[in-house]
Amino acid sequence: MAVVLPFESPNPASLNRLAELVAPDMERVNSTILARTGSDVAMIPEVANHLISSGGKRLRPMLTLAMARLSGYSGDGHIKLAAAVEFMHTATLLHDDVVDESDLRRGKVAARMLWGNEASVLVGDFLLGQAFKMMVEVGNLHALDILSSAAAVIAEGEVMQLGTAKNTATNEDEYLSVIRAKTAELFAAACEVGPALAAKEKAELAACRSFGMNLGIAFQLIDDALDYGGKSAKLGKNVGDDLREGKPTLPLLIAMERGSADERAIVRHAIEHGEVARLADIVRIVRSTGAIVATREAARAEADKARASLEVLPATAYRDALLDLSVRSVERSS
Amino acid sequence: MAVVLPFESPNPASLNRLAELVAPDMERVNSTILARTGSDVAMIPEVANHLISSGGKRLRPMLTLAMARLSGYSGDGHIKLAAAVEFMHTATLLHDDVVDESDLRRGKVAARMLWGNEASVLVGDFLLGQAFKMMVEVGNLHALDILSSAAAVIAEGEVMQLGTAKNTATNEDEYLSVIRAKTAELFAAACEVGPALAAKEKAELAACRSFGMNLGIAFQLIDDALDYGGKSAKLGKNVGDDLREGKPTLPLLIAMERGSADERAIVRHAIEHGEVARLADIVRIVRSTGAIVATREAARAEADKARASLEVLPATAYRDALLDLSVRSVERSS
Repeated sequence: MAVVLPFESPNPASLNRLAELVAPDMERVNSTILARTGSDVAMIPEVANHLISSGGKRLRPMLTLAMARLSGYSGDGHIKLAAAVEFMHTATLLHDDVVDESDLRRGKVAARMLWGNEASVLVGDFLLGQAFKMMVEVGNLHALDILSSAAAVIAEGEVMQLGTAKNTATNEDEYLSVIRAKTAELFAAACEVGPALAAKEKAELAACRSFGMNLGIAFQLIDDALDYGGKSAKLGKNVGDDLREGKPTLPLLIAMERGSADERAIVRHAIEHGEVARLADIVRIVRSTGAIVATREAARAEADKARASLEVLPATAYRDALLDLSVRSVERSS
Repeated sequence: MAVVLPFESPNPASLNRLAELVAPDMERVNSTILARTGSDVAMIPEVANHLISSGGKRLRPMLTLAMARLSGYSGDGHIKLAAAVEFMHTATLLHDDVVDESDLRRGKVAARMLWGNEASVLVGDFLLGQAFKMMVEVGNLHALDILSSAAAVIAEGEVMQLGTAKNTATNEDEYLSVIRAKTAELFAAACEVGPALAAKEKAELAACRSFGMNLGIAFQLIDDALDYGGKSAKLGKNVGDDLREGKPTLPLLIAMERGSADERAIVRHAIEHGEVARLADIVRIVRSTGAIVATREAARAEADKARASLEVLPATAYRDALLDLSVRSVERSS
């Protein structure tokens, strides 16, 4: 599969082709999301909508919708499953903010700063409950299996990440295990439930899952690169946030591997203490050692794998849009 | 249904009849719980088992097992559902323990608790994921519907409780709504999945659910009474814990209603500030106004309703043990 696009094409309309294709379905997903955050307990829609309406790209539900259509699914179940996927993602963000002590999320003040940690935890739980309710309403046990397994794996990945925080002995394999579980698993599940709804063969499910998994890894690698190379306003979080939490992400691991003894010591100290005092130096080291470029290359390799997975699927507009997405995801600068 | 037992019978072996009946099943539940907290991520079994093995009564899974047997269910699904119910309960406990930022700022919680908070949130999420996986494995959509709905309602109840904290305008109806959602809903769901597995008629499901709901309310009322009248060591938490969180529980609401203007002012101040400085006075006021006795009476009325629900069910040893449990739950002193 040769999909060649210009090397650097930071197109702000990066999701447009896919977004346009799924627009009618996405409108129904959005209505479902709105309806399902409703509660007599006023704080629930307040907290949930604070985050949900804050301009997330709805990338994961879009994958569910596109994969269902690409699989020839003609029912209604993909709408609720897409909404459930977004709720799972939102719940993770709410719980992450408590864990990370973040002040900002998607460029807005984190929910926990406004309503407290307790509300973030509990509204996240509510959204998880609603997600499972919607899945059960769809009534497809295979899809339920995929998404409930994903929920456990994601949490496992988050705990794994706790264990790597401030730990400079983390190696690239461990880092990859973390991002595979905490991020890519939901991309994979979001993609796999599409063909599962359409009762497709194992090979097709595996192809869709594999696309999501590799796209998810690529997506997280770019996020991690942007934490040292992006513009904070665009990314909706602060440059250096990962460092503040002592996360040994790939850019830092590469910088330590390639840097001088002095540079290595600076980066190691910052990770071990979750310290951003020398952020400017760290950013300079990460860039001068080529760690950003190398991380972007790793992301491109994952995106290549993602594209290769789609070869077995029918060549439709949906497939084209997904291929396009996989390229643009890794070339984004925000 | 007339089940008359001595008025005060604080039998330490209060769960024995039921526990003996379900012992073989419970052994399988315990093995399942142990297996399902397993993870390559070492912190997960550590945190999960710390709580799971810390002497919980396993009351909720016991209800699932007993109701499944009482409904004549002869399959295996009740084992995993019972384990799932216990995981849902454990996840709630873990998330309940998360302390909000303001408490941390007041320096009440040691720095090590921060690590605890993170792990509490994420291991709770992992257990929820595992709970849903087990339910999906059982493959009964009705049971899945009951338990996923319960998950959303429980979270809703916890958020509702946040809104009543330090709020002396909370009335008894609001208090009851909170405990119905945060506590009794899981008792109800734990009971209802038994006959759901056995594919029983609506009326039987409703009877089992109603038993669980009223038992759960009774159970929480007694817990709330014991927070001012129990022995801290026995209850496994400190007298006054609810007050520290500013929870306007029934004993306090009754004490404010019945107390003198001075007494009312003392209780109100304590709730509004989550202050335990005058705990001894509060305990005295709660007792002298008869609030403990009245709360216990309210619990007995709920237990009566619970027993009445079981009338339509077959008169077996399981039913007898459940009737017995409903009496002893409200007469416990720890």
